[in-house]
Amino acid sequence: MRNKPLTVAAVVFPGFELLDLFGPLELLGMLGERATLAVVAEETGTVMSSQGPATVAEGALSQVRRPGLLLVPGGLGTRQQINNANFLELLREAAAEAEYVASVCTGSMLLARAGLLDGRRATSNKRAFDAVVTQGPHVQWVREARWVQDGNYFTSSGVSAGMDMTLALIQKVYGRKTALEIAHRAEYSWREDSTVDPFATPAPVRT
Amino acid sequence: MRNKPLTVAAVVFPGFELLDLFGPLELLGMLGERATLAVVAEETGTVMSSQGPATVAEGALSQVRRPGLLLVPGGLGTRQQINNANFLELLREAAAEAEYVASVCTGSMLLARAGLLDGRRATSNKRAFDAVVTQGPHVQWVREARWVQDGNYFTSSGVSAGMDMTLALIQKVYGRKTALEIAHRAEYSWREDSTVDPFATPAPVRT
Repeated sequence: MRNKPLTVAAVVFPGFELLDLFGPLELLGMLGERATLAVVAEETGTVMSSQGPATVAEGALSQVRRPGLLLVPGGLGTRQQINNANFLELLREAAAEAEYVASVCTGSMLLARAGLLDGRRATSNKRAFDAVVTQGPHVQWVREARWVQDGNYFTSSGVSAGMDMTLALIQKVYGRKTALEIAHRAEYSWREDSTVDPFATPAPVRT
Repeated sequence: MRNKPLTVAAVVFPGFELLDLFGPLELLGMLGERATLAVVAEETGTVMSSQGPATVAEGALSQVRRPGLLLVPGGLGTRQQINNANFLELLREAAAEAEYVASVCTGSMLLARAGLLDGRRATSNKRAFDAVVTQGPHVQWVREARWVQDGNYFTSSGVSAGMDMTLALIQKVYGRKTALEIAHRAEYSWREDSTVDPFATPAPVRT
């Protein structure tokens, strides 16, 4: 088992999606001393979410060194960041040094745009799927998946799916027992099978 | 159907639990113009979560007037706030004017301590249940429930359960179709039956 903490660097930008960020950080936080959590951005300071409530980036993305996990949420703000060359370059540099890279929802749009998913299998939010695909023509997009792991890259479907992916990541790093314990502590019903995706259909299935 | 936005005041304090706050705010945020979200605290400014990452309280709890929904997360910080007479008084005042009051996880410890749950049915986090119960001897505590509604008060079980409760609240305010649409948009499998509680047992059931 791993003998050093998993150092998590969560990358925020204006218009990030709240649950994309805080669902995974909640579960990673339950690792206690086995993880450290840092919120980083292009510039330090207060960063507003897509929903309004803000978080605080205490670190700069440019200062991230060899993160255990580089976590990239999605959100409406991704539409601006795909045109932010400096942000994408910083993302590439941090990802190159990262032990694991993970995106939630349209966060994979940023990884794709940065070229980080080229040749890899990946997924994204179902409602934004077609828009995401255009940012990564060399990515093997998987339309029906709760999340996709390809090597040290994890990409999840929309919003809530980030929590199922994070538990898979915790399982990968610290084993299944730890992942199950954390899911239980969070009173979260972990969807363990990454291939089961009830949201690949376009509309609510229950009425 | 309702013709004015649901004004949400989410009350934070040092050591609040990330997902208790941001799971509900994610879903409420999907109401778009049908809701406004404000994060408030005893004092405005940056407030650190139990996990470390911070949010920003832009409003003071004392300034909250007739909220549509007063949302109270839990977290380790509740252990300090149960001894904070000023905070509890402000909570009582805001709750008295609120259309709906909701707590997530050990947030019900604060409502109970403030006397707001006296004579009501309520629930809380399963691992902290016995500690919570001591704060509300006149509350009808329900040990097995995903969430409990009693009049305009909603209390949920631990952490993730806040999202199921929030969808029930959205259903109550804006109808079932809206709740299902938001669950689908968040790619969240809503546990619609408040009486089904897979976490009432003390340990992981899967190994």
